[in-house]
Amino acid sequence: MNYQRFFEDAIDQLHAERRYRVFADLERMVGKFPRALWRTGADTREITVWCSNDYLGMGQHPKVVGAFQDAAGRMGSGAGGTRNISGTSNPLVELESELADLHGKEAGLVFTSGFVSNEAAISTIARLLPNCLILSDELNHASMIEGVRRSGAEKRIFRHNDVAHLESLLQQAGRERAKLIVFESVYSMDGDIAPIKEIADLADKYNAMTYIDEVHAVGMYGPRGGGITEREGLADRIDVIEGTLAKAFGTLGGYITGTSAVVDAVRSYAPGFIFTTALPPALAAAATASIRHLKSSQGERDAQQRQAARAKQILGDAGLPVMPSVTHIVPVLVGDPELCKMASDRLLGVHGIYIQPINYPTVPRGTERLRITPTPFHSDALILELRDALVETWNALGIPYGTVQRPEVSASERIVPLLVPKSGG
Amino acid sequence: MNYQRFFEDAIDQLHAERRYRVFADLERMVGKFPRALWRTGADTREITVWCSNDYLGMGQHPKVVGAFQDAAGRMGSGAGGTRNISGTSNPLVELESELADLHGKEAGLVFTSGFVSNEAAISTIARLLPNCLILSDELNHASMIEGVRRSGAEKRIFRHNDVAHLESLLQQAGRERAKLIVFESVYSMDGDIAPIKEIADLADKYNAMTYIDEVHAVGMYGPRGGGITEREGLADRIDVIEGTLAKAFGTLGGYITGTSAVVDAVRSYAPGFIFTTALPPALAAAATASIRHLKSSQGERDAQQRQAARAKQILGDAGLPVMPSVTHIVPVLVGDPELCKMASDRLLGVHGIYIQPINYPTVPRGTERLRITPTPFHSDALILELRDALVETWNALGIPYGTVQRPEVSASERIVPLLVPKSGG
Ligand SMILES: Cc1ncc(COP(=O)(O)O)c(C=O)c1O
Ligand SMILES: Cc1ncc(COP(=O)(O)O)c(C=O)c1O
Repeated sequence: MNYQRFFEDAIDQLHAERRYRVFADLERMVGKFPRALWRTGADTREITVWCSNDYLGMGQHPKVVGAFQDAAGRMGSGAGGTRNISGTSNPLVELESELADLHGKEAGLVFTSGFVSNEAAISTIARLLPNCLILSDELNHASMIEGVRRSGAEKRIFRHNDVAHLESLLQQAGRERAKLIVFESVYSMDGDIAPIKEIADLADKYNAMTYIDEVHAVGMYGPRGGGITEREGLADRIDVIEGTLAKAFGTLGGYITGTSAVVDAVRSYAPGFIFTTALPPALAAAATASIRHLKSSQGERDAQQRQAARAKQILGDAGLPVMPSVTHIVPVLVGDPELCKMASDRLLGVHGIYIQPINYPTVPRGTERLRITPTPFHSDALILELRDALVETWNALGIPYGTVQRPEVSASERIVPLLVPKSGG
Repeated sequence: MNYQRFFEDAIDQLHAERRYRVFADLERMVGKFPRALWRTGADTREITVWCSNDYLGMGQHPKVVGAFQDAAGRMGSGAGGTRNISGTSNPLVELESELADLHGKEAGLVFTSGFVSNEAAISTIARLLPNCLILSDELNHASMIEGVRRSGAEKRIFRHNDVAHLESLLQQAGRERAKLIVFESVYSMDGDIAPIKEIADLADKYNAMTYIDEVHAVGMYGPRGGGITEREGLADRIDVIEGTLAKAFGTLGGYITGTSAVVDAVRSYAPGFIFTTALPPALAAAATASIRHLKSSQGERDAQQRQAARAKQILGDAGLPVMPSVTHIVPVLVGDPELCKMASDRLLGVHGIYIQPINYPTVPRGTERLRITPTPFHSDALILELRDALVETWNALGIPYGTVQRPEVSASERIVPLLVPKSGG
């Protein structure tokens, strides 16, 4: 039994499948977002980040950084304990009521990450319901899948955003059985949006509970940044709204909001919430500052939508295969893992543009892509620079141009986008 | 199907069992540790925290807070992405090599918490080994138990710190089968230490892999703060050393260290590492500052040991049932959940002393306790104040005095401490 060998083999397999990931060593620069320093060995270069999930650049906002530094100066760098054992700070208590207010719910609960919030909340809710059946969208995020698994509950996967399929599963389960529907509002790799109203209607019809992940929507949609559920006036029709503090809000942490009872139950029963050090007060204070700012400021949201629309238009006009997205996310199809990695490397090395390749297992094989996230700080000039760099890269590597049609949805194949070839650039 | 009812029932059950937890709303004060502001409704009082896991007060250390604020000012409040998607910051890369150096290992990997590091690493390691058998100490932390469960591997629980029992399980499994022994160095609720050398010897004899959780030891033991494995010169005999940045190092996050192959495999395969936003650069910079300081400064460790020994002596002399601990942890036996909660409430309300009650399921029923953690900042005067407050509380509530003998170990009953009654105080 040579243990080392198994780990080496596992790594070799990733290399063989061209899935081995190398992390770029970056240093963000407050005031210069989306510019960053990229370190490789002795060399340091300034580059432009085009794939940040700091969607609105709030991570460098003076109010947010100021709240962060101020709270650290007054309360220190850590929480000093689990929530129960001396780690519940006043900024955390305030943050939780801010979040409840954001979504119009009775209560909020903060976790160390969005990942942990999904895993802990979904598993705990499903375990507290007798013989619960979980109905889960096939494209749900890894953290939701972990929560479903960890619950030990029976699960049925419904085809992505397919309400007819969901209804047939609900029907089979019957009204009397406990049922939890888990899904996302914005799916981050395709930029599409769930039919929330239809799902809520089905939940009413079949008496199911609903859990939505608004990680890629909070801060960015709705007049106060309450997400797609706020924009569409549906927040009160969803039982649990989950989100992150680490994307549009620019900090770290995750949360759920819901009735006092469900939040209190998760608070009291979820090991992933109970047995871990609380979020530092400085992060809580920074998150609250960010949420409060975005509750009243529409400017960031408008600018983000404008630059995302512009990027889609300009890249599409150049013949680049922009995948159909109805949100701020701009995926460009490459369709091959090796080419995707090469394109990313070339963009960084030759053009000083950083866009991480998105390969299997994050997306289905054959749909490898560059996922571009324009923010309010990606100017028109930067978009033109990006287009030129992409076109040069597409030409140099022989990546197909074309338009991408609305994806075909299939249960086994997941999403299969259809590339209609077109010569471009 | 009334969903709400199940959550309400779950909460009611906790109330009925006197296990419902109310978090104290605290505000730490840099420069005044262990003092904090305690908020209840409109009222705010200054109190002394005696149960912080900021074991050395590093959360308020000027170097740590300074590094935190400085990095936030330069790099912002968040990482902006997962490790793979623009979230790998230079301070995080530096932190990982600092940690590898701390434990004399080839590589380090940082997670958002110690909880996540245990869950993600144990489950991933065990899944990469064919037909792995996990041997797990019965008192392992919830996060390790989650990792064991999540692995899906077969597991055998060995009696706490019982090497004879562990050996019999290893023998049954045989040399050829993949085996992973998971245990802690310092058990945080009792303050005892694992027989690390004996376990490493058994691992050699039966060709098992070893994984140790040094969460309650790093920073505090060993000439550079490398934990009990460093103090006893055993770091190179353990395959994976796990720790937290959120206790003695005063920040947030968790980590593993080991060979490059095992660390790279976890990095590449663990969903809990891959699919979540990275730790903000400011936290990484603060953690590095803390680790570096404690690598060369022995003063905090000496002062902590001195004050912990003094507290044990003084409380024991007063007849209080101090449980036998060989570390900085000072558990005082109450033995009843209701009394334990009442004692904690009285200490806070009457004496301005905050010590969270530790009840089931964190510790076995019948061993409910107050868990006291003296730090370098708990002066002799504070210890005397604590003794007087405890004695007043013990008398007021009629909690038994006595000496507590080394716990009897039993597989089914877990630890049963023996209270030898004594009139005191
Ligand atoms: C849909 C979705 N949910 C949850 C998460 C996890 O959130 P966090 O980064 O805060 O852990 C992510 C990505 O990170 C995500 O894409
Ligand atoms: C033994 C042990 N391991 C791991 C953890 C989790 O570490 P963290 O607080 O960094 O999540 C804890 C407590 O929080 C612990 O007591």
